[in-house]
Amino acid sequence: MPVDMLQSPFMSQEAQAASRDEDFVGAMLAFELALAETQEAEGAIPDGTAERMRAHLEGHAFDVPAITAGIASGGNAAIPFVKAGRAALPDDLKRYWHLGATSQDVVDSALMLLLAPRLARLDAMLERCRSAGIALMVRHDETVMVGRTLMQQALPITFGVKVAHWALGLEEGRRRLAGLTLPVQFGGAVGVHSGLDGPGRGEQGLQIMDGLAARLGLAAPVLPWHTDRQPIHALASAVDALAGAAEKLALDVSLLTQTELGEVAEPAGEGMGESSSMPHKRNPVRCAMIRGACRRVHGHASVILNATAQPLERGLGEWHAEWMPLVDGVLLLEGALEQAAVLLEGLEVNAEAMRRNLAVTGGAIMAEPVARRLTPQLGPDAAKALAADAAERARQAAFPYAQALETLLGERHPELAGEITRDELEAATNPALYLGSSKAQVARAVRWLEG
Amino acid sequence: MPVDMLQSPFMSQEAQAASRDEDFVGAMLAFELALAETQEAEGAIPDGTAERMRAHLEGHAFDVPAITAGIASGGNAAIPFVKAGRAALPDDLKRYWHLGATSQDVVDSALMLLLAPRLARLDAMLERCRSAGIALMVRHDETVMVGRTLMQQALPITFGVKVAHWALGLEEGRRRLAGLTLPVQFGGAVGVHSGLDGPGRGEQGLQIMDGLAARLGLAAPVLPWHTDRQPIHALASAVDALAGAAEKLALDVSLLTQTELGEVAEPAGEGMGESSSMPHKRNPVRCAMIRGACRRVHGHASVILNATAQPLERGLGEWHAEWMPLVDGVLLLEGALEQAAVLLEGLEVNAEAMRRNLAVTGGAIMAEPVARRLTPQLGPDAAKALAADAAERARQAAFPYAQALETLLGERHPELAGEITRDELEAATNPALYLGSSKAQVARAVRWLEG
Amino acid sequence: MPVDMLQSPFMSQEAQAASRDEDFVGAMLAFELALAETQEAEGAIPDGTAERMRAHLEGHAFDVPAITAGIASGGNAAIPFVKAGRAALPDDLKRYWHLGATSQDVVDSALMLLLAPRLARLDAMLERCRSAGIALMVRHDETVMVGRTLMQQALPITFGVKVAHWALGLEEGRRRLAGLTLPVQFGGAVGVHSGLDGPGRGEQGLQIMDGLAARLGLAAPVLPWHTDRQPIHALASAVDALAGAAEKLALDVSLLTQTELGEVAEPAGEGMGESSSMPHKRNPVRCAMIRGACRRVHGHASVILNATAQPLERGLGEWHAEWMPLVDGVLLLEGALEQAAVLLEGLEVNAEAMRRNLAVTGGAIMAEPVARRLTPQLGPDAAKALAADAAERARQAAFPYAQALETLLGERHPELAGEITRDELEAATNPALYLGSSKAQVARAVRWLEG
Amino acid sequence: MPVDMLQSPFMSQEAQAASRDEDFVGAMLAFELALAETQEAEGAIPDGTAERMRAHLEGHAFDVPAITAGIASGGNAAIPFVKAGRAALPDDLKRYWHLGATSQDVVDSALMLLLAPRLARLDAMLERCRSAGIALMVRHDETVMVGRTLMQQALPITFGVKVAHWALGLEEGRRRLAGLTLPVQFGGAVGVHSGLDGPGRGEQGLQIMDGLAARLGLAAPVLPWHTDRQPIHALASAVDALAGAAEKLALDVSLLTQTELGEVAEPAGEGMGESSSMPHKRNPVRCAMIRGACRRVHGHASVILNATAQPLERGLGEWHAEWMPLVDGVLLLEGALEQAAVLLEGLEVNAEAMRRNLAVTGGAIMAEPVARRLTPQLGPDAAKALAADAAERARQAAFPYAQALETLLGERHPELAGEITRDELEAATNPALYLGSSKAQVARAVRWLEG
Repeated sequence: MPVDMLQSPFMSQEAQAASRDEDFVGAMLAFELALAETQEAEGAIPDGTAERMRAHLEGHAFDVPAITAGIASGGNAAIPFVKAGRAALPDDLKRYWHLGATSQDVVDSALMLLLAPRLARLDAMLERCRSAGIALMVRHDETVMVGRTLMQQALPITFGVKVAHWALGLEEGRRRLAGLTLPVQFGGAVGVHSGLDGPGRGEQGLQIMDGLAARLGLAAPVLPWHTDRQPIHALASAVDALAGAAEKLALDVSLLTQTELGEVAEPAGEGMGESSSMPHKRNPVRCAMIRGACRRVHGHASVILNATAQPLERGLGEWHAEWMPLVDGVLLLEGALEQAAVLLEGLEVNAEAMRRNLAVTGGAIMAEPVARRLTPQLGPDAAKALAADAAERARQAAFPYAQALETLLGERHPELAGEITRDELEAATNPALYLGSSKAQVARAVRWLEG
Repeated sequence: MPVDMLQSPFMSQEAQAASRDEDFVGAMLAFELALAETQEAEGAIPDGTAERMRAHLEGHAFDVPAITAGIASGGNAAIPFVKAGRAALPDDLKRYWHLGATSQDVVDSALMLLLAPRLARLDAMLERCRSAGIALMVRHDETVMVGRTLMQQALPITFGVKVAHWALGLEEGRRRLAGLTLPVQFGGAVGVHSGLDGPGRGEQGLQIMDGLAARLGLAAPVLPWHTDRQPIHALASAVDALAGAAEKLALDVSLLTQTELGEVAEPAGEGMGESSSMPHKRNPVRCAMIRGACRRVHGHASVILNATAQPLERGLGEWHAEWMPLVDGVLLLEGALEQAAVLLEGLEVNAEAMRRNLAVTGGAIMAEPVARRLTPQLGPDAAKALAADAAERARQAAFPYAQALETLLGERHPELAGEITRDELEAATNPALYLGSSKAQVARAVRWLEG
Repeated sequence: MPVDMLQSPFMSQEAQAASRDEDFVGAMLAFELALAETQEAEGAIPDGTAERMRAHLEGHAFDVPAITAGIASGGNAAIPFVKAGRAALPDDLKRYWHLGATSQDVVDSALMLLLAPRLARLDAMLERCRSAGIALMVRHDETVMVGRTLMQQALPITFGVKVAHWALGLEEGRRRLAGLTLPVQFGGAVGVHSGLDGPGRGEQGLQIMDGLAARLGLAAPVLPWHTDRQPIHALASAVDALAGAAEKLALDVSLLTQTELGEVAEPAGEGMGESSSMPHKRNPVRCAMIRGACRRVHGHASVILNATAQPLERGLGEWHAEWMPLVDGVLLLEGALEQAAVLLEGLEVNAEAMRRNLAVTGGAIMAEPVARRLTPQLGPDAAKALAADAAERARQAAFPYAQALETLLGERHPELAGEITRDELEAATNPALYLGSSKAQVARAVRWLEG
Repeated sequence: MPVDMLQSPFMSQEAQAASRDEDFVGAMLAFELALAETQEAEGAIPDGTAERMRAHLEGHAFDVPAITAGIASGGNAAIPFVKAGRAALPDDLKRYWHLGATSQDVVDSALMLLLAPRLARLDAMLERCRSAGIALMVRHDETVMVGRTLMQQALPITFGVKVAHWALGLEEGRRRLAGLTLPVQFGGAVGVHSGLDGPGRGEQGLQIMDGLAARLGLAAPVLPWHTDRQPIHALASAVDALAGAAEKLALDVSLLTQTELGEVAEPAGEGMGESSSMPHKRNPVRCAMIRGACRRVHGHASVILNATAQPLERGLGEWHAEWMPLVDGVLLLEGALEQAAVLLEGLEVNAEAMRRNLAVTGGAIMAEPVARRLTPQLGPDAAKALAADAAERARQAAFPYAQALETLLGERHPELAGEITRDELEAATNPALYLGSSKAQVARAVRWLEG
């Protein structure tokens, strides 16, 4: 393929090793052999046919480059594969090969067979993420840090809550994906099992479809779905949702890893994140790989969303456009989730930096609780103004926010002298006393994640 | 808005009437009043507060243009709305207004409130489509037509099966959408209910969130989801899937309506489909409207897919980018589904044209069953060649396929004289005897649709 | 329209005021009147016709809601508009109205007329950006700050260079857009000027097209372009490119505005960036508005890219899908560029914070020049190791990098004592002496921008 | 790569053969060697260095799988490549290797070097398309066929005009692409040539950049463009525009090839378009391949449009996301254009079928000119009604339109007896007399194409 090295590092290596051309040919063969077995079980072809077919073809060395070269003229991989398979069979078996099937049956089903172990592995990666996420949440359910909205310091949260959001997003995506099924495709040339026609054979097509699904470990659809691409849309968009969840993790880690923040760091690793020219740098390379992969998943999803409507009984390019975005989308996501699991399992958390950053505004991020604390005495407007002005004064003069508040309160509202003590002001400006439901949120999230 | 007339006709009129700025302000108010009620029920604010608040604000004439004008400085609609609401309250109520909430709580929840009746109506439209689809399928489960793959005539199907595919796609999408929930948003400034802080108040934030959800008829999320946009992704992609299903219907109807095919026609209607210059034309305008709307839904979905990952505790543009694509996507889909329902309920079906088109190739579309029929005697390759050559001869000479077959068979395989009768050849070339599982498929689809 | 308030703040107010339904009707009228004038000039209709037509229609109060309501049945705005216009003319003029035109001629040309002043204003905004950018670049061509790659501190640059990149991106986009033309559309029902047919009238269609273009101030295309949508693609993608350039500015400003960095701030403004709950916050709201708008531009572009291929002589949904993405895309970009101009004209630059952040690693960002400085004596590997280890020691012990280097150099390479002086080390670690081509880059960029 | 066979057939084979990992490594090496040569020419490194470097590395067998394996830790291909190159050099040359460069310089420039011959070949394919298009246009500038709007028969055109639109779209795209330049990338770690620092070296960075561009046959940018991705946007969107133009050709050919229309057919070829089950079929496989490829180009463009804004001095995933969409987009387009050239050069045109289809409505497509012809006598409304009613009568009774008109005219407007002759009616209903500017359009298009 063109410059594999620009793509391969973003994908799961394990996934790539299991998704070669040979594997796809194997999946097409598995479809055809299971089809023969099913038809034999249904009495549609003579006893023993399927076993003989398997004996001839299972060890057969298909000429994969020749099959690839043959695709252009027919427009899909099944056409040259079916020819090659037929050629390798003895004459008396040829007529039972690919019986009642069309090339879309082969290609769609082979894609589902190729993807099935990938979805299982996505699930496994997501379980690793969940476990690592839970451990991190629990460990840090009292680790105070500043929450940031529109990338500005806002108010305190805990790092545990932040991790909870990462874990929830990934788990929501996992459950969405786990709810999907991979359906077999089997409808024959125009989807109505014409090839099985004959007296009383009308029903048999659907029975064979159901039996084939069971034999291949795929789901049985209501009907063949040659141009009803809802299953593909559901799969591609669920994959995209997980890409979004992984990307959120990578985006947050990238931001928190910024030199000036330094609140977390990617797990250290031999050579990880080094620069070709700057010895001091440790780049958030895993985040870059995740974000690079996931952006491409969105592009692949865009192709599939725009190709959901396919004409009449077979797509004319729409179907063909789905193949790679589907496979590449899944493999890129698998690569991103491998990185996500490593990130969550080994993330370096710098609680000291979190505390340092909380103090960077001179305490002004506490202006809102302070304003709330003062509202009963001053009314909301005067309270808000005092809280804001004291924050500005503290920042400029670099002295503590509580002290600035006390001074300004004395200046503006001498009548309140004694009503609001310095201790109360200290408490009002203490982030650790202002964590709201943070701890409860972690507990609730853990229950849901484990539920 | 800019050139409303370029968009409004694609959208549901009913939906547009219920989605004005006033409705959004009303939804924001509903959120704030329900929040006060919930907090009162939880003992967080004095008894009677919420009722007094409601008395002041329910009939209050909010200055909607002023609110709109105020959005630019704060970046969202809640900021000027909250100010306007507070200004309209007596001083002693001001402190209980918007208590513990942040602008994203208001906007996200108001969007969910705005969308809830829309999703209900999407469901209703889809039920209309399903009913109309079932009726059409059953009526035409023996109406023979040609199936077309890559837009070429392939083999016979029934019109009932084609409708079944339309109906399945829409119903799959309906069930996907029906499985989603619209969650309330309530987390306060950084999502941890800071604003409700105080001794023993940690849990209360989540209780209020749950109570608020129940009061508003929305779902209770695990945690506030300010930057966990999985619910938005799920919604936008389910909407997009339905757009794909509607677009498939419109694509097929457009193709079957082509002048040369004429197998179906959009329901006739006063002025529908007329041209500004050509009196003879009846354009498939409903299909154009559906396809125009649904392509835009894909663009809106693309925005949301690319904005799923949002930074830290609040998006910086990512969140803002979601609003219109979400609303417009739903309203465009609602418009498309209204058209789809009309199409399915009133589609003109021309069975005569379907029969005429079946004959257009001189019967050559039956080449595959003929080849299959002859395979036992001739082997697959000779059978395929004979079927193809006879088809070409029939098309060129414009005489019946069965006759061409008989002649060619006599020429090439005189040894088979008498083994294959003209009656058998007639039968092999009769589309109506070659419908495979078509009837069974309709029955199975009906069971699933009604299930 | 649905919840205008969720979109309007992102768009140029001026643009919205000039893009109402009334303006579009006016543009359609301008097309029809110019068409009559051109045909009269070509001798195709009687003298005086156009003037009488104009007298009847220029002040005519078209019933815009009725036209909007009439769109659904014909599928575009021209059909009801042409009817309304014809109805308002005396009988003897009716036959010269819309003569030889088709609805797509009217709609496409009206869109171009609507967009022409918008493109002019985009250009004006971009010139404001360019001027402001040049001023900022020149003012800061020696203002040292840290360059950041993968969001990690890397090496020094100047703020002038950073601004140069913003300005170059916007200007590249400006020139790309300025190179485009807005073509008139005029081809009649199927694009070959059938309506003008008659002896010797073959050529006249193209002459009228050219004359009409000149009269309307639009470009004359080679041929009518009903389904050759290259001009629309070129326009939409040029708009999208500018969205990318504006988004880059907003992304950088957002990142540099982070509380912990504080290197720049959006221009202060009454109420700008305030939070509904947090008095201390000043949110980068303009950046959020830009990023929110530009993400949507990408979604609109995606619709147009996917609709470039349109069937035969008129799109069936593809054309309809273009309208709003084109208009909304331009108006969102205009809104974003207004914000960009304000940002560049009023950006608060905190050179002190830039210096502070340069020191945050204890000087370790200078490890690369130091390594380079030491390479002649130590070889590249030992030099790189020493530079890195000293940086880590300086960061941990919080003492100057030059000092750490001197100590470590003494420990590891006593043989070099005296060969590398402390002064040299100080120089090697001084960011201001390490700005490479920064100043030259600003000068070169200014020349290009002004060129 | 994963299932190469699902992608490779859509791409140019020639392009794939020239875009292997080895080629990319070669391009990176070409960059580094040219950099050394340029620096030597500028006096920045000792004489003879570059030649020695080349002698060591030009024949060096880089371990490509090892480089690929090393990408994950650094995040791009340059990092392991630069290490490998340095290791292969004698110690005294190591310090001049990759001097002043950063990994993005290497990767971006290598991509441009890889793409340069591809763009040249795209241009060559487009010239083939243009030549073939001109020949086809000229040959068919009087071949009458029906124009179709919204896929309904509308009015006559010539096939020559239709081809002109295909040719114009492709040529517009060709000129757009030909107007672009591929810029070298060279800026060093943060884009300001820090690595070349020293007294008086400020300017040198830009000189080396310019010299390097000239040496590599690339364009010299204004400044390094690490995060100013306008060149990438311009390239990706120009590629996408061509995909749209190719897709338009394929869409039209697909539609005109439909069994019932049969107006054109893809060039016949051994095995082209055969079905795995239906012997009679000849599928428009080239159209399917074009449409399949081009839809994916849109997805790739979507990634690049969304990644145009890149943070600060280096993208964090945004850059990484560009690589494959850029390369794959170009290679898919090259594949599509190869198919387009074959289509245009060998398209089978069935003028007889075009005539047959013109007659399919009983002449009713001529209703508009008939109405126009009758307007002077009857007024526009009565004329339109008569033309439409006669068309309907002709279609139902299957007799000629002119005859139906004459009859109905006699019935409704006896007063006009003799005023409108049967000959005039025959002429009014003759498509070949109603081709407007068709011939002039072909002539004008040829002039522009050849201009």
